[in-house]
Amino acid sequence: MSESEPIERLVGLLAKLPGLGRRSARRAVLRMLMHPEATMLPLAEALREAAEAVRPCAVCGNLDTRSPCAICRDPRRERGVICVVEGVADLWALERAQVHRGLYHVLGGTLSALGGVGPEDLAIRSLVARVAEGGGVEEVILALPATVDGATTAHYLTDRLRPSGVRITRLAQGVPIGGALDVLDDGTLAAAVKARRPA
Amino acid sequence: MSESEPIERLVGLLAKLPGLGRRSARRAVLRMLMHPEATMLPLAEALREAAEAVRPCAVCGNLDTRSPCAICRDPRRERGVICVVEGVADLWALERAQVHRGLYHVLGGTLSALGGVGPEDLAIRSLVARVAEGGGVEEVILALPATVDGATTAHYLTDRLRPSGVRITRLAQGVPIGGALDVLDDGTLAAAVKARRPA
Ligand SMILES: [Zn+2]
Ligand SMILES: [Zn+2]
Repeated sequence: MSESEPIERLVGLLAKLPGLGRRSARRAVLRMLMHPEATMLPLAEALREAAEAVRPCAVCGNLDTRSPCAICRDPRRERGVICVVEGVADLWALERAQVHRGLYHVLGGTLSALGGVGPEDLAIRSLVARVAEGGGVEEVILALPATVDGATTAHYLTDRLRPSGVRITRLAQGVPIGGALDVLDDGTLAAAVKARRPA
Repeated sequence: MSESEPIERLVGLLAKLPGLGRRSARRAVLRMLMHPEATMLPLAEALREAAEAVRPCAVCGNLDTRSPCAICRDPRRERGVICVVEGVADLWALERAQVHRGLYHVLGGTLSALGGVGPEDLAIRSLVARVAEGGGVEEVILALPATVDGATTAHYLTDRLRPSGVRITRLAQGVPIGGALDVLDDGTLAAAVKARRPA
């Protein structure tokens, strides 16, 4: 072992993070060791604080320091529209884009026959309950990934929610804004052509 | 702000690490928040331990929990051969490749007219002192990057060390032009060390 033990341990833990291999982890550790007090101690403190303070919202599954989360508590949000997402990362993306003013519901994944993910593994029962509860939910937007599993999940949710009479929508599929046509896959192009609208 | 404050702060700190942008930092934080006690607390502890325990070796500039470092203290290392590297990452790369059995000297950079790095900014005085000390140093291997600044630094060190009469070598061609040492495979490093030539 060429590195000292605390360095080796830190590199090993950092290298497990998605997006960081061993080489990047080593570079990051060396960079931090130039100013350890200014870099490593604040990061250690932020990790500890997040680990202790952040929990899933009991209503929607978002991550926050309080449950219900800030979005669920916000009186300015439209309570009649629930946007269903696969994970918290998608919720954050929609919030950054400021394109949804209603509430959310985080499924925690998508149905996957191959991956062995069934309805009971996802937050589906709580979604059906939220809609059935009579809290005035008028629309459920299925913002699920445009994959086979995403489509399967959307179909399943549509079947489960239909008895409630709620309006069920899904995101439009098409050409991303600013995207060149020749880098898109055939499926996206096909969907964009099929859903074409008057110019 | 879409994310809660502790999450936002943690993402911001992680995103500053080389190799991790904001998107990767968010993904890493979400992954860790699935099992915060098993991931975030050990990482926080490892950061704190490294920040507190790791320091530069007063002899060679390597990073370790003790000074002199484990390499400088190791009685099995050849004390007559000092390998001069730009930074600790290069020292680690050579150690992983197990191609150098002597000691090291970390310069902390290379001379750079454009970057305003002069001889007094690097650990050159201490290198000259180590060689002049009469500790039996027979050879200094200049394992510097194959860049203009690396070559400038090698020339400068050769001039400074020549009066001591020590044998001065540099790594063989085989280090790609413009290439950093710490991205090279072990075989290339081994060949370069084996075929080192007088500077
Ligand atoms: Zn919530
Ligand atoms: Zn040392």
